[in-house]
Amino acid sequence: MAWHQVEIRLEPRPRGFHLVTGEIVAALAALPDLKRMRVGVAHLFIQHTSASLTINENADPDVRADMERWFDQAVPENAPYIVHTAEGSDDMPAHLKASLLGSSVSVPIRDGRLALGTWQGVYLGEHRDHGGSRTVIVTLTGE
Amino acid sequence: MAWHQVEIRLEPRPRGFHLVTGEIVAALAALPDLKRMRVGVAHLFIQHTSASLTINENADPDVRADMERWFDQAVPENAPYIVHTAEGSDDMPAHLKASLLGSSVSVPIRDGRLALGTWQGVYLGEHRDHGGSRTVIVTLTGE
Amino acid sequence: MAWHQVEIRLEPRPRGFHLVTGEIVAALAALPDLKRMRVGVAHLFIQHTSASLTINENADPDVRADMERWFDQAVPENAPYIVHTAEGSDDMPAHLKASLLGSSVSVPIRDGRLALGTWQGVYLGEHRDHGGSRTVIVTLTGE
Repeated sequence: MAWHQVEIRLEPRPRGFHLVTGEIVAALAALPDLKRMRVGVAHLFIQHTSASLTINENADPDVRADMERWFDQAVPENAPYIVHTAEGSDDMPAHLKASLLGSSVSVPIRDGRLALGTWQGVYLGEHRDHGGSRTVIVTLTGE
Repeated sequence: MAWHQVEIRLEPRPRGFHLVTGEIVAALAALPDLKRMRVGVAHLFIQHTSASLTINENADPDVRADMERWFDQAVPENAPYIVHTAEGSDDMPAHLKASLLGSSVSVPIRDGRLALGTWQGVYLGEHRDHGGSRTVIVTLTGE
Repeated sequence: MAWHQVEIRLEPRPRGFHLVTGEIVAALAALPDLKRMRVGVAHLFIQHTSASLTINENADPDVRADMERWFDQAVPENAPYIVHTAEGSDDMPAHLKASLLGSSVSVPIRDGRLALGTWQGVYLGEHRDHGGSRTVIVTLTGE
Protein backbone atom coordinates (compact mmCIF):
# COMPACT_ATOMS: atom_id res chain seq x y z
CA MET A 1 0.00 0.00 0.00
CA ALA A 2 1.38 3.35 -1.01
CA TRP A 3 0.22 6.97 -0.92
CA HIS A 4 1.90 9.68 -2.92
CA GLN A 5 0.95 13.24 -3.68
CA VAL A 6 2.53 15.81 -5.93
CA GLU A 7 1.45 19.29 -6.95
CA ILE A 8 1.96 20.18 -10.59
CA ARG A 9 1.68 23.51 -12.33
CA LEU A 10 0.10 23.51 -15.75
CA GLU A 11 1.55 26.29 -17.87
CA PRO A 12 -0.78 29.15 -18.88
CA ARG A 13 -2.95 28.25 -21.85
CA PRO A 14 -5.50 30.15 -23.90
CA ARG A 15 -9.20 29.74 -23.23
CA GLY A 16 -10.41 26.37 -24.50
CA PHE A 17 -9.77 22.69 -23.97
CA HIS A 18 -6.23 21.31 -23.86
CA LEU A 19 -4.86 17.79 -23.74
CA VAL A 20 -2.65 17.48 -20.64
CA THR A 21 -2.27 13.70 -20.40
CA GLY A 22 1.49 13.98 -20.99
CA GLU A 23 2.00 16.29 -18.02
CA ILE A 24 -0.09 14.03 -15.77
CA VAL A 25 1.69 10.88 -16.87
CA ALA A 26 5.08 12.54 -16.32
CA ALA A 27 4.11 13.60 -12.79
CA LEU A 28 2.93 10.08 -11.96
CA ALA A 29 6.04 8.49 -13.49
CA ALA A 30 8.21 10.55 -11.14
CA LEU A 31 6.54 8.94 -8.10
CA PRO A 32 8.49 6.00 -6.63
CA ASP A 33 5.78 3.35 -6.62
CA LEU A 34 3.82 3.72 -9.85
CA LYS A 35 5.73 1.13 -11.86
CA ARG A 36 5.20 -1.65 -9.32
CA MET A 37 1.60 -0.76 -8.51
CA ARG A 38 -0.68 -3.59 -9.56
CA VAL A 39 -3.97 -1.82 -8.82
CA GLY A 40 -4.82 1.65 -7.60
CA VAL A 41 -6.42 4.98 -8.40
CA ALA A 42 -4.89 8.27 -9.53
CA HIS A 43 -6.89 11.30 -8.35
CA LEU A 44 -6.37 14.61 -10.16
CA PHE A 45 -7.76 17.76 -8.57
CA ILE A 46 -7.61 21.30 -9.94
CA GLN A 47 -7.48 24.00 -7.26
CA HIS A 48 -9.47 26.58 -9.22
CA THR A 49 -13.10 27.53 -9.78
CA SER A 50 -12.79 28.79 -13.36
CA ALA A 51 -10.98 25.81 -14.90
CA SER A 52 -11.85 22.12 -14.98
CA LEU A 53 -10.58 18.62 -15.63
CA THR A 54 -12.39 16.13 -17.83
CA ILE A 55 -11.66 13.06 -19.93
CA ASN A 56 -12.33 13.00 -23.65
CA GLU A 57 -10.90 12.08 -27.03
CA ASN A 58 -7.12 12.26 -27.32
CA ALA A 59 -6.95 12.28 -31.12
CA ASP A 60 -8.73 14.83 -33.35
CA PRO A 61 -8.17 18.40 -32.02
CA ASP A 62 -11.51 19.36 -33.59
CA VAL A 63 -13.18 17.64 -30.64
CA ARG A 64 -11.60 20.15 -28.28
CA ALA A 65 -12.52 23.09 -30.50
CA ASP A 66 -16.11 21.85 -30.89
CA MET A 67 -16.37 21.44 -27.11
CA GLU A 68 -15.29 25.04 -26.63
CA ARG A 69 -17.86 26.25 -29.17
CA TRP A 70 -20.68 24.24 -27.58
CA PHE A 71 -19.88 25.47 -24.08
CA ASP A 72 -19.64 29.07 -25.28
CA GLN A 73 -23.15 28.98 -26.72
CA ALA A 74 -24.61 26.93 -23.84
CA VAL A 75 -23.14 29.23 -21.18
CA PRO A 76 -23.08 32.63 -22.89
CA GLU A 77 -21.33 35.72 -21.64
CA ASN A 78 -23.40 38.80 -20.86
CA ALA A 79 -26.62 36.90 -20.22
CA PRO A 80 -29.13 39.34 -18.69
CA TYR A 81 -29.51 37.33 -15.46
CA ILE A 82 -25.78 37.31 -14.60
CA VAL A 83 -24.89 39.52 -11.61
CA HIS A 84 -21.33 38.37 -10.84
CA THR A 85 -19.54 40.42 -13.51
CA ALA A 86 -16.93 42.40 -11.56
CA GLU A 87 -14.08 40.23 -12.84
CA GLY A 88 -15.18 40.38 -16.48
CA SER A 89 -17.82 38.85 -18.71
CA ASP A 90 -15.88 35.56 -18.98
CA ASP A 91 -15.83 35.01 -15.22
CA MET A 92 -19.29 33.73 -14.30
CA PRO A 93 -19.53 31.49 -17.41
CA ALA A 94 -16.16 30.07 -16.32
CA HIS A 95 -17.58 29.18 -12.89
CA LEU A 96 -20.54 27.45 -14.53
CA LYS A 97 -18.38 25.47 -16.95
CA ALA A 98 -16.12 24.47 -14.06
CA SER A 99 -19.04 22.91 -12.18
CA LEU A 100 -20.57 21.32 -15.29
CA LEU A 101 -17.29 19.55 -16.03
CA GLY A 102 -15.93 19.14 -12.53
CA SER A 103 -12.78 19.88 -10.59
CA SER A 104 -11.41 16.34 -10.46
CA VAL A 105 -11.03 13.18 -12.46
CA SER A 106 -9.95 9.84 -11.09
CA VAL A 107 -8.47 7.11 -13.24
CA PRO A 108 -7.78 3.50 -12.28
CA ILE A 109 -4.19 2.27 -12.17
CA ARG A 110 -3.57 -1.18 -13.61
CA ASP A 111 -0.19 -2.85 -13.88
CA GLY A 112 1.81 0.30 -13.26
CA ARG A 113 -0.01 2.70 -15.56
CA LEU A 114 -3.20 4.70 -16.02
CA ALA A 115 -5.91 2.39 -17.35
CA LEU A 116 -7.26 4.91 -19.83
CA GLY A 117 -9.17 3.64 -22.85
CA THR A 118 -7.46 3.78 -26.23
CA TRP A 119 -9.04 7.09 -27.16
CA GLN A 120 -9.11 8.73 -23.74
CA GLY A 121 -6.97 11.65 -22.64
CA VAL A 122 -7.13 14.15 -19.77
CA TYR A 123 -8.32 17.62 -20.74
CA LEU A 124 -7.73 20.90 -18.97
CA GLY A 125 -10.75 23.12 -19.48
CA GLU A 126 -9.40 26.66 -19.34
CA HIS A 127 -12.51 28.79 -19.03
CA ARG A 128 -10.98 32.24 -18.50
CA ASP A 129 -9.57 34.47 -21.23
CA HIS A 130 -6.36 34.88 -19.22
CA GLY A 131 -6.42 32.15 -16.57
CA GLY A 132 -2.68 31.92 -16.05
CA SER A 133 -0.94 28.87 -14.62
CA ARG A 134 -3.19 26.22 -13.02
CA THR A 135 -2.36 23.99 -10.07
CA VAL A 136 -3.33 20.32 -10.05
CA ILE A 137 -2.85 18.04 -7.06
CA VAL A 138 -2.12 14.47 -8.11
CA THR A 139 -2.78 11.83 -5.46
CA LEU A 140 -1.78 8.25 -6.15
CA THR A 141 -2.76 5.29 -4.01
CA GLY A 142 -2.72 1.56 -4.58
CA GLU A 143 -0.72 -1.57 -3.96
CA MET B 1 -3.37 3.79 6.67
CA ALA B 2 -6.77 4.76 8.01
CA TRP B 3 -10.37 4.48 6.83
CA HIS B 4 -13.16 6.47 8.41
CA GLN B 5 -16.74 7.07 7.41
CA VAL B 6 -19.40 9.28 8.86
CA GLU B 7 -22.89 10.14 7.71
CA ILE B 8 -23.92 13.75 8.06
CA ARG B 9 -27.31 15.37 7.67
CA LEU B 10 -27.42 18.70 5.93
CA GLU B 11 -30.27 20.78 7.26
CA PRO B 12 -33.15 21.57 4.88
CA ARG B 13 -32.35 24.48 2.58
CA PRO B 14 -34.29 26.34 -0.07
CA ARG B 15 -33.83 25.52 -3.73
CA GLY B 16 -30.51 26.84 -4.98
CA PHE B 17 -26.80 26.50 -4.28
CA HIS B 18 -25.46 26.58 -0.73
CA LEU B 19 -21.94 26.68 0.68
CA VAL B 20 -21.54 23.69 3.02
CA THR B 21 -17.76 23.61 3.44
CA GLY B 22 -18.11 24.33 7.15
CA GLU B 23 -20.30 21.31 7.79
CA ILE B 24 -17.96 19.06 5.81
CA VAL B 25 -14.86 20.34 7.58
CA ALA B 26 -16.53 19.89 10.97
CA ALA B 27 -17.45 16.28 10.16
CA LEU B 28 -13.89 15.52 9.03
CA ALA B 29 -12.38 17.24 12.07
CA ALA B 30 -14.38 14.92 14.32
CA LEU B 31 -12.64 11.88 12.82
CA PRO B 32 -9.67 10.62 14.85
CA ASP B 33 -6.99 10.58 12.15
CA LEU B 34 -7.47 13.70 10.07
CA LYS B 35 -4.95 15.88 11.90
CA ARG B 36 -2.09 13.43 11.49
CA MET B 37 -2.92 12.42 7.94
CA ARG B 38 -0.10 13.48 5.63
CA VAL B 39 -1.82 12.53 2.38
CA GLY B 40 -5.24 11.12 1.54
CA VAL B 41 -8.59 11.73 -0.10
CA ALA B 42 -11.94 12.82 1.34
CA HIS B 43 -14.89 11.44 -0.62
CA LEU B 44 -18.27 13.15 -0.21
CA PHE B 45 -21.35 11.39 -1.54
CA ILE B 46 -24.94 12.63 -1.48
CA GLN B 47 -27.54 9.88 -1.25
CA HIS B 48 -30.16 11.64 -3.35
CA THR B 49 -31.09 12.00 -7.01
CA SER B 50 -32.48 15.54 -6.88
CA ALA B 51 -29.59 17.26 -5.12
CA SER B 52 -25.90 17.45 -5.95
CA LEU B 53 -22.44 18.30 -4.67
CA THR B 54 -20.01 20.49 -6.57
CA ILE B 55 -17.01 22.73 -5.91
CA ASN B 56 -17.08 26.41 -6.75
CA GLU B 57 -16.31 29.88 -5.47
CA ASN B 58 -16.52 30.33 -1.72
CA ALA B 59 -16.68 34.14 -1.70
CA ASP B 60 -19.28 36.18 -3.60
CA PRO B 61 -22.81 34.77 -3.01
CA ASP B 62 -23.80 36.14 -6.44
CA VAL B 63 -21.96 33.18 -7.96
CA ARG B 64 -24.39 30.81 -6.29
CA ALA B 65 -27.40 32.88 -7.33
CA ASP B 66 -26.15 33.15 -10.92
CA MET B 67 -25.60 29.39 -11.01
CA GLU B 68 -29.19 28.82 -9.95
CA ARG B 69 -30.48 31.20 -12.63
CA TRP B 70 -28.39 29.57 -15.36
CA PHE B 71 -29.51 26.06 -14.40
CA ASP B 72 -33.14 27.14 -14.24
CA GLN B 73 -33.06 28.43 -17.81
CA ALA B 74 -30.91 25.55 -19.13
CA VAL B 75 -33.12 22.87 -17.55
CA PRO B 76 -36.57 24.48 -17.59
CA GLU B 77 -39.65 23.19 -15.83
CA ASN B 78 -42.66 22.21 -17.88
CA ALA B 79 -40.72 21.48 -21.05
CA PRO B 80 -43.07 19.76 -23.52
CA TYR B 81 -40.94 16.59 -23.73
CA ILE B 82 -40.94 15.91 -19.97
CA VAL B 83 -43.05 12.88 -18.96
CA HIS B 84 -41.87 12.31 -15.36
CA THR B 85 -44.04 14.97 -13.70
CA ALA B 86 -45.96 13.06 -11.03
CA GLU B 87 -43.89 14.56 -8.21
CA GLY B 88 -44.15 18.14 -9.48
CA SER B 89 -42.69 20.29 -12.21
CA ASP B 90 -39.45 20.77 -10.27
CA ASP B 91 -38.73 17.04 -10.04
CA MET B 92 -37.40 16.02 -13.45
CA PRO B 93 -35.28 19.18 -13.81
CA ALA B 94 -33.85 18.31 -10.37
CA HIS B 95 -32.83 14.86 -11.63
CA LEU B 96 -31.13 16.41 -14.65
CA LYS B 97 -29.26 19.00 -12.59
CA ALA B 98 -28.17 16.26 -10.18
CA SER B 99 -26.52 14.31 -13.02
CA LEU B 100 -25.03 17.38 -14.67
CA LEU B 101 -23.33 18.36 -11.43
CA GLY B 102 -22.79 14.93 -9.89
CA SER B 103 -23.48 13.10 -6.67
CA SER B 104 -19.98 13.17 -5.26
CA VAL B 105 -16.89 15.29 -4.95
CA SER B 106 -13.50 14.10 -3.79
CA VAL B 107 -10.87 16.41 -2.38
CA PRO B 108 -7.23 15.62 -1.64
CA ILE B 109 -6.03 15.70 1.95
CA ARG B 110 -2.64 17.29 2.53
CA ASP B 111 -1.00 17.78 5.92
CA GLY B 112 -4.14 17.13 7.91
CA ARG B 113 -6.61 19.25 5.98
CA LEU B 114 -8.61 19.50 2.77
CA ALA B 115 -6.32 20.79 0.02
CA LEU B 116 -8.91 23.13 -1.46
CA GLY B 117 -7.73 26.09 -3.49
CA THR B 118 -8.02 29.54 -1.93
CA TRP B 119 -11.35 30.28 -3.59
CA GLN B 120 -12.86 26.80 -3.50
CA GLY B 121 -15.76 25.68 -1.35
CA VAL B 122 -18.15 22.74 -1.38
CA TYR B 123 -21.64 23.52 -2.66
CA LEU B 124 -24.85 21.67 -2.01
CA GLY B 125 -27.07 21.95 -5.08
CA GLU B 126 -30.61 21.75 -3.74
CA HIS B 127 -32.70 21.23 -6.85
CA ARG B 128 -36.13 20.63 -5.32
CA ASP B 129 -38.48 23.33 -4.05
CA HIS B 130 -38.84 21.43 -0.77
CA GLY B 131 -36.01 18.92 -0.69
CA GLY B 132 -35.80 18.56 3.07
CA SER B 133 -32.73 17.33 4.91
CA ARG B 134 -30.01 15.74 2.76
CA THR B 135 -27.69 12.90 3.74
CA VAL B 136 -24.00 12.98 2.80
CA ILE B 137 -21.62 10.08 3.43
CA VAL B 138 -18.10 11.30 4.14
CA THR B 139 -15.37 8.71 3.62
CA LEU B 140 -11.81 9.59 4.60
CA THR B 141 -8.78 7.51 3.75
CA GLY B 142 -5.07 8.21 3.77
CA GLU B 143 -1.93 7.80 5.83
CA MET C 1 -6.88 -3.12 3.63
CA ALA C 2 -7.76 -4.65 0.29
CA TRP C 3 -7.50 -3.61 -3.35
CA HIS C 4 -9.41 -5.39 -6.09
CA GLN C 5 -10.00 -4.57 -9.72
CA VAL C 6 -12.15 -6.21 -12.32
CA GLU C 7 -13.01 -5.26 -15.87
CA ILE C 8 -16.60 -5.78 -16.92
CA ARG C 9 -18.19 -5.61 -20.33
CA LEU C 10 -21.60 -3.99 -20.54
CA GLU C 11 -23.60 -5.52 -23.35
CA PRO C 12 -24.46 -3.29 -26.34
CA ARG C 13 -27.44 -1.08 -25.66
CA PRO C 14 -29.38 1.42 -27.73
CA ARG C 15 -28.69 5.12 -27.44
CA GLY C 16 -30.10 6.47 -24.17
CA PHE C 17 -29.76 5.94 -20.45
CA HIS C 18 -29.73 2.47 -18.94
CA LEU C 19 -29.80 1.22 -15.37
CA VAL C 20 -26.73 -1.01 -14.84
CA THR C 21 -26.66 -1.25 -11.04
CA GLY C 22 -27.25 -5.00 -11.23
CA GLU C 23 -24.19 -5.63 -13.37
CA ILE C 24 -22.03 -3.47 -11.10
CA VAL C 25 -23.29 -5.14 -7.93
CA ALA C 26 -22.69 -8.59 -9.44
CA ALA C 27 -19.10 -7.68 -10.37
CA LEU C 28 -18.44 -6.37 -6.87
CA ALA C 29 -20.05 -9.40 -5.24
CA ALA C 30 -17.63 -11.66 -7.11
CA LEU C 31 -14.66 -9.96 -5.41
CA PRO C 32 -13.34 -11.81 -2.35
CA ASP C 33 -13.42 -8.99 0.21
CA LEU C 34 -16.60 -7.04 -0.39
CA LYS C 35 -18.74 -8.82 2.18
CA ARG C 36 -16.34 -8.23 5.06
CA MET C 37 -15.44 -4.68 4.07
CA ARG C 38 -16.62 -2.28 6.77
CA VAL C 39 -15.76 0.93 4.92
CA GLY C 40 -14.37 1.67 1.47
CA VAL C 41 -15.02 3.12 -1.95
CA ALA C 42 -16.02 1.48 -5.23
CA HIS C 43 -14.69 3.36 -8.26
CA LEU C 44 -16.35 2.74 -11.63
CA PHE C 45 -14.60 4.00 -14.75
CA ILE C 46 -15.83 3.72 -18.35
CA GLN C 47 -13.02 3.49 -20.92
CA HIS C 48 -14.85 5.40 -23.65
CA THR C 49 -15.34 9.01 -24.75
CA SER C 50 -18.85 8.67 -26.17
CA ALA C 51 -20.55 6.99 -23.20
CA SER C 52 -20.78 7.98 -19.55
CA LEU C 53 -21.60 6.84 -16.04
CA THR C 54 -23.89 8.76 -13.71
CA ILE C 55 -26.13 8.15 -10.71
CA ASN C 56 -29.84 8.84 -10.85
CA GLU C 57 -33.27 7.48 -10.03
CA ASN C 58 -33.58 3.71 -10.10
CA ALA C 59 -37.40 3.55 -10.27
CA ASP C 60 -39.48 5.25 -12.99
CA PRO C 61 -38.01 4.56 -16.47
CA ASP C 62 -39.49 7.89 -17.62
CA VAL C 63 -36.61 9.59 -15.83
CA ARG C 64 -34.15 7.90 -18.17
CA ALA C 65 -36.22 8.73 -21.24
CA ASP C 66 -36.64 12.36 -20.15
CA MET C 67 -32.89 12.61 -19.57
CA GLU C 68 -32.25 11.41 -23.10
CA ARG C 69 -34.71 13.95 -24.52
CA TRP C 70 -33.18 16.82 -22.55
CA PHE C 71 -29.64 15.95 -23.59
CA ASP C 72 -30.68 15.59 -27.22
CA GLN C 73 -32.10 19.11 -27.33
CA ALA C 74 -29.30 20.62 -25.21
CA VAL C 75 -26.55 19.04 -27.33
CA PRO C 76 -28.11 18.88 -30.79
CA GLU C 77 -26.75 17.01 -33.78
CA ASN C 78 -25.82 18.97 -36.89
CA ALA C 79 -25.23 22.25 -35.09
CA PRO C 80 -23.56 24.66 -37.52
CA TYR C 81 -20.43 25.09 -35.38
CA ILE C 82 -19.59 21.37 -35.21
CA VAL C 83 -16.52 20.37 -37.24
CA HIS C 84 -15.84 16.85 -35.92
CA THR C 85 -18.43 15.02 -38.03
CA ALA C 86 -16.41 12.32 -39.82
CA GLU C 87 -17.83 9.55 -37.62
CA GLY C 88 -21.44 10.67 -37.96
CA SER C 89 -23.71 13.37 -36.64
CA ASP C 90 -24.14 11.56 -33.31
CA ASP C 91 -20.40 11.50 -32.57
CA MET C 92 -19.52 15.00 -31.38
CA PRO C 93 -22.72 15.35 -29.30
CA ALA C 94 -21.72 12.02 -27.71
CA HIS C 95 -18.33 13.43 -26.72
CA LEU C 96 -20.01 16.47 -25.17
CA LYS C 97 -22.54 14.40 -23.23
CA ALA C 98 -19.73 12.15 -22.00
CA SER C 99 -17.89 15.11 -20.47
CA LEU C 100 -21.04 16.73 -19.08
CA LEU C 101 -21.90 13.51 -17.23
CA GLY C 102 -18.42 12.14 -16.60
CA SER C 103 -16.47 8.96 -17.14
CA SER C 104 -16.53 7.73 -13.57
CA VAL C 105 -18.66 7.47 -10.48
CA SER C 106 -17.46 6.50 -7.04
CA VAL C 107 -19.75 5.12 -4.37
CA PRO C 108 -18.95 4.57 -0.70
CA ILE C 109 -18.92 1.04 0.67
CA ARG C 110 -20.53 0.55 4.07
CA ASP C 111 -20.89 -2.78 5.85
CA GLY C 112 -20.14 -4.88 2.80
CA ARG C 113 -22.32 -3.14 0.24
CA LEU C 114 -22.68 -0.04 -1.89
CA ALA C 115 -24.07 2.77 0.25
CA LEU C 116 -26.44 4.04 -2.42
CA GLY C 117 -29.49 6.01 -1.34
CA THR C 118 -32.87 4.33 -1.59
CA TRP C 119 -33.64 5.80 -4.99
CA GLN C 120 -30.16 5.78 -6.47
CA GLY C 121 -28.94 3.54 -9.27
CA VAL C 122 -25.97 3.58 -11.64
CA TYR C 123 -26.76 4.66 -15.20
CA LEU C 124 -24.87 3.94 -18.36
CA GLY C 125 -25.25 6.89 -20.70
CA GLU C 126 -24.96 5.42 -24.18
CA HIS C 127 -24.53 8.44 -26.42
CA ARG C 128 -23.84 6.79 -29.79
CA ASP C 129 -26.48 5.31 -32.08
CA HIS C 130 -24.48 2.08 -32.29
CA GLY C 131 -21.97 2.23 -29.45
CA GLY C 132 -21.50 -1.51 -29.04
CA SER C 133 -20.21 -3.14 -25.88
CA ARG C 134 -18.72 -0.83 -23.25
CA THR C 135 -15.87 -1.61 -20.86
CA VAL C 136 -16.03 -0.51 -17.22
CA ILE C 137 -13.13 -0.92 -14.79
CA VAL C 138 -14.35 -1.53 -11.25
CA THR C 139 -11.79 -0.78 -8.52
CA LEU C 140 -12.67 -1.63 -4.94
CA THR C 141 -10.66 -0.57 -1.92
CA GLY C 142 -11.39 -0.45 1.76
CA GLU C 143 -10.92 -2.34 4.99
